[in-house]
Amino acid sequence: MKPARDNAAPDLITIHGAFMAEPSPDIAESFTDMVNGVIAGDRRALAKAITLVESARDDDRAEAEALLRALMPRAGRSLRIGLSGAPGAGKSTFIEAFGMQLIADGHQVAVLAVDPSSRRSGGSILGDKTRMEQLSRNPSAFIRPSPSGGELGGVARRTRETIALAEAAGFDRVLVETVGVGQSETAVADMTDLFVLLLAPAGGDELQGVKRGIMELADIILVTKADGDMRPAALRQAADVSAALMFMSPRIAGWRVPVIAISALEGAGLDQVKAAIADFAAHDAEGRAQRRKAQDAAWMWNEFKALMLARALSNPKVAAQARLLEDQVMRGEISPVAAARALVEGVNSD
Amino acid sequence: MKPARDNAAPDLITIHGAFMAEPSPDIAESFTDMVNGVIAGDRRALAKAITLVESARDDDRAEAEALLRALMPRAGRSLRIGLSGAPGAGKSTFIEAFGMQLIADGHQVAVLAVDPSSRRSGGSILGDKTRMEQLSRNPSAFIRPSPSGGELGGVARRTRETIALAEAAGFDRVLVETVGVGQSETAVADMTDLFVLLLAPAGGDELQGVKRGIMELADIILVTKADGDMRPAALRQAADVSAALMFMSPRIAGWRVPVIAISALEGAGLDQVKAAIADFAAHDAEGRAQRRKAQDAAWMWNEFKALMLARALSNPKVAAQARLLEDQVMRGEISPVAAARALVEGVNSD
Repeated sequence: MKPARDNAAPDLITIHGAFMAEPSPDIAESFTDMVNGVIAGDRRALAKAITLVESARDDDRAEAEALLRALMPRAGRSLRIGLSGAPGAGKSTFIEAFGMQLIADGHQVAVLAVDPSSRRSGGSILGDKTRMEQLSRNPSAFIRPSPSGGELGGVARRTRETIALAEAAGFDRVLVETVGVGQSETAVADMTDLFVLLLAPAGGDELQGVKRGIMELADIILVTKADGDMRPAALRQAADVSAALMFMSPRIAGWRVPVIAISALEGAGLDQVKAAIADFAAHDAEGRAQRRKAQDAAWMWNEFKALMLARALSNPKVAAQARLLEDQVMRGEISPVAAARALVEGVNSD
Repeated sequence: MKPARDNAAPDLITIHGAFMAEPSPDIAESFTDMVNGVIAGDRRALAKAITLVESARDDDRAEAEALLRALMPRAGRSLRIGLSGAPGAGKSTFIEAFGMQLIADGHQVAVLAVDPSSRRSGGSILGDKTRMEQLSRNPSAFIRPSPSGGELGGVARRTRETIALAEAAGFDRVLVETVGVGQSETAVADMTDLFVLLLAPAGGDELQGVKRGIMELADIILVTKADGDMRPAALRQAADVSAALMFMSPRIAGWRVPVIAISALEGAGLDQVKAAIADFAAHDAEGRAQRRKAQDAAWMWNEFKALMLARALSNPKVAAQARLLEDQVMRGEISPVAAARALVEGVNSD
């Protein structure tokens, strides 16, 4: 854990003033209410804060950053668990059962989602809370659907900030669910401490559904539906996956990726999952702290470059030149490096 | 193949002038000689051109880009084959044997290397040409050691441009070798059409030497040293790897990654490798053309962002602010997004 994060939240007005023009009294008041509400673990305040962070409006963004600055010192106190699996792998059923177990152990559980496809698929993957009936009604749980669509970068950024808000509100177990759509897994792995992959029992061919690279992101692999008629198939698959893992080095040095057959229905294997997560958290304690810092720094630099690019392209002349150069590059008429340099000249000569 | 690449090289002087101040006559002359030399397939001219592209000096860079602009229309006419494997996997032995077979089939073979570690390891992985005795002496082959060290991004950029130069010189098979040091494989996969992974026969545990993600980059996997006492182990391993592949989706949709046991010593399996490469090239013909364009465009944008960042940080005030903000981010005091925005303000207010 980062020592700085144990400090109390610094004086709001300072932070506030540092980020936005002096707000009208009522905004300032609602802002202070929101900050204190989140710190008090008030669900409505947290939901409101997340909506603010998810907003694309510029003035909202300024307030969102003031909010984050006020709450960041209280963030970072959770274990962030990424969860992925193809549709039908049994993610919701697992989260429902496992989340209730975490709560029984005295944890506060937040469930978030990264689903860049939600706009297309019309509705976020966590939109239907009936998929997690008990959990969604439990006072120790907070379930937040995926922000509605948009490109992955944006969704991922907002989810990272939402994690910080949930942590500031006192949630010490943050589950970030993603559908197996490829890119999003990497984004989730980059914002969590631990990545869990769920596989439904199936022949190897159906497993092709697991996008490339995902297997090697996983710190723990669960084979679901190990009950009734499916149990033999699930156990066989767990063995096959273990064998396959021999050919992949673990994400975290020295960690042996466990493959656990579970039944969310019968609650079988959930204790093993709990133990595996505890083992991993202990094994990776030092690495986690370092990695979080590196992740945050990398995030800042990527964001900076993205903003510089957006600002450059907001100039119509530069945007036109960029399109021209990109065409030349794609036609193989000019080296991408030369094109990039020419574009930089264009930006600075303007 | 990109139609534009079939055009003759446009008039040099125009291109030249577009990129650098009017050069002194002798420079202009040597430049024209170099361009025509490369086009004529002259080895000395090609070697000189690559050295120019690898140079870090600014004025060299300007000339290098004029050179690339002159030669890019003639590039793109090769099959670019990435090769990777842990030290001792038998890469050089395979390249020597396979390269000679390609030449026997009438191909012109260029062998390049990406080895960001070469500075540390003191000497590039291809520095010792005795490792490829026949090939290095063959007039239809061109072997270029890895640029001496430096960070991966730089090495990768120069290798991409070196590929273009080799293609302009008429080499229609470009092998890009990399040691299994992780990151470099992804870079090589991003600049080649086909990625071949070499594995030495070994137990699963030793295979942990294969860095994470590499297995899933591979379009073709070779298990080497399938001769003498090693043959049974090699065949067993080929079967194990095939089984493991069931759990990974291929890089190219619809392609079934073949696992071939080979003996470079006895020449066993080389025909299968040739056939597999031909099958892949045919299967992926359309995808290859599209992917190359996308790779080049992505390369341009990354280069542009890197240049913008470097330029911003060349301002001492901005650099100091960046260090300050990065520290705050890593201490968890400020959101990476807010820090990035603050830094952009700093750049523009200056």
